[in-house]
Amino acid sequence: MSRLIVALDCEAEKAIEIAEKISDYVYAFKVNYPLVLKSGLSLIKTLSKISMVIADFKIADVPHMSSQIAECAFEAGAKAVIAHAFVGFDSLEAVVNKSKKYGGEVYAVCELSSEGGKEFMLPVSEKLAKVAVKAGCSGIVAPATRVERIKSLRKVVGNLKIISPGVGVQGGSALEAIKAGADYVIVGRRVIVGDVVKNVEEILKEIGDIDED
Amino acid sequence: MSRLIVALDCEAEKAIEIAEKISDYVYAFKVNYPLVLKSGLSLIKTLSKISMVIADFKIADVPHMSSQIAECAFEAGAKAVIAHAFVGFDSLEAVVNKSKKYGGEVYAVCELSSEGGKEFMLPVSEKLAKVAVKAGCSGIVAPATRVERIKSLRKVVGNLKIISPGVGVQGGSALEAIKAGADYVIVGRRVIVGDVVKNVEEILKEIGDIDED
Repeated sequence: MSRLIVALDCEAEKAIEIAEKISDYVYAFKVNYPLVLKSGLSLIKTLSKISMVIADFKIADVPHMSSQIAECAFEAGAKAVIAHAFVGFDSLEAVVNKSKKYGGEVYAVCELSSEGGKEFMLPVSEKLAKVAVKAGCSGIVAPATRVERIKSLRKVVGNLKIISPGVGVQGGSALEAIKAGADYVIVGRRVIVGDVVKNVEEILKEIGDIDED
Repeated sequence: MSRLIVALDCEAEKAIEIAEKISDYVYAFKVNYPLVLKSGLSLIKTLSKISMVIADFKIADVPHMSSQIAECAFEAGAKAVIAHAFVGFDSLEAVVNKSKKYGGEVYAVCELSSEGGKEFMLPVSEKLAKVAVKAGCSGIVAPATRVERIKSLRKVVGNLKIISPGVGVQGGSALEAIKAGADYVIVGRRVIVGDVVKNVEEILKEIGDIDED
């Protein structure tokens, strides 16, 4: 069982090629808006036949619109969506309600891994995590770039899943994120640039999901 | 000069039909993610030939990803994008920097018009407005559902444009929003359901952009 989520932050053709090469090594693939906007929702369908897909749409709209965005992702075959908790309980609940129709999952962003994530999100991220729990989310998104935050948020969310971006180019360590309490680490550029199989094996060794040579 | 932005929250075919009917009456058309995800970025191109298009993608990602999302919208012909300020200065600045290449505009959401907008955004919305000013945004998004908030935010943003959603079905009054300091009101369902020309004329009369009969 892998604890690695690979962010396919590249063009569609390469995304499919990478997904086919490393699907046995990963828990899920994460797709972003630029990729889906350029390629269409059909790309989610294609990838979902290879492995589980998380639509990282960072949904952050009023409830009826957030619900419709989630529907687009689930209809296309995504297993999970990522939504912001900052927009409040009603919007997050609308996304969770929509997910139930599809047996899907919702992960709520509590704190972005970027520097900007410290400004408005960090000061309230425990509260955001509580909203995620109350809304019935499957898990939250917490930054590998600030592993002490993963520890703090774990105390709030109990058994909910924590997925953690910011590993690699952004500076976070996959192993430290897992040690701090993340269930899954999300890695983009460090996997998809260069030899993808070698890159993935390195990360899985680092977090102990496969044995060292 | 109209102060009405119409949110084309419907299917693509109807959106184009509506846009053609009322383009003379509106400042701009706003498109959302469900519409663009289902129809492709080419819809923005089609609409941009009819009138100015605001891509309401509520961009809320880490800087390099936010920048790429904005690029998708501008490349497709959008004149403006909407981005969230709560993700912090770096992300908003990345979107503004991208907009410059296209002579585009960026509107920063300070407070959603929904109930959830009161939970985490309202308490910091003046600060979010300051971030919008600092990042070089063209304007902000403030709720017509709470016009006293428009007044407060106007004091922070000075001459920046304020666009204001929540008019109609969500309960806000177009006239009250304009009186409170909004430059443009954003109306969706109240325009696009029923006789669109009649609906638009009613709103324009209400805000004094065309004379009463």
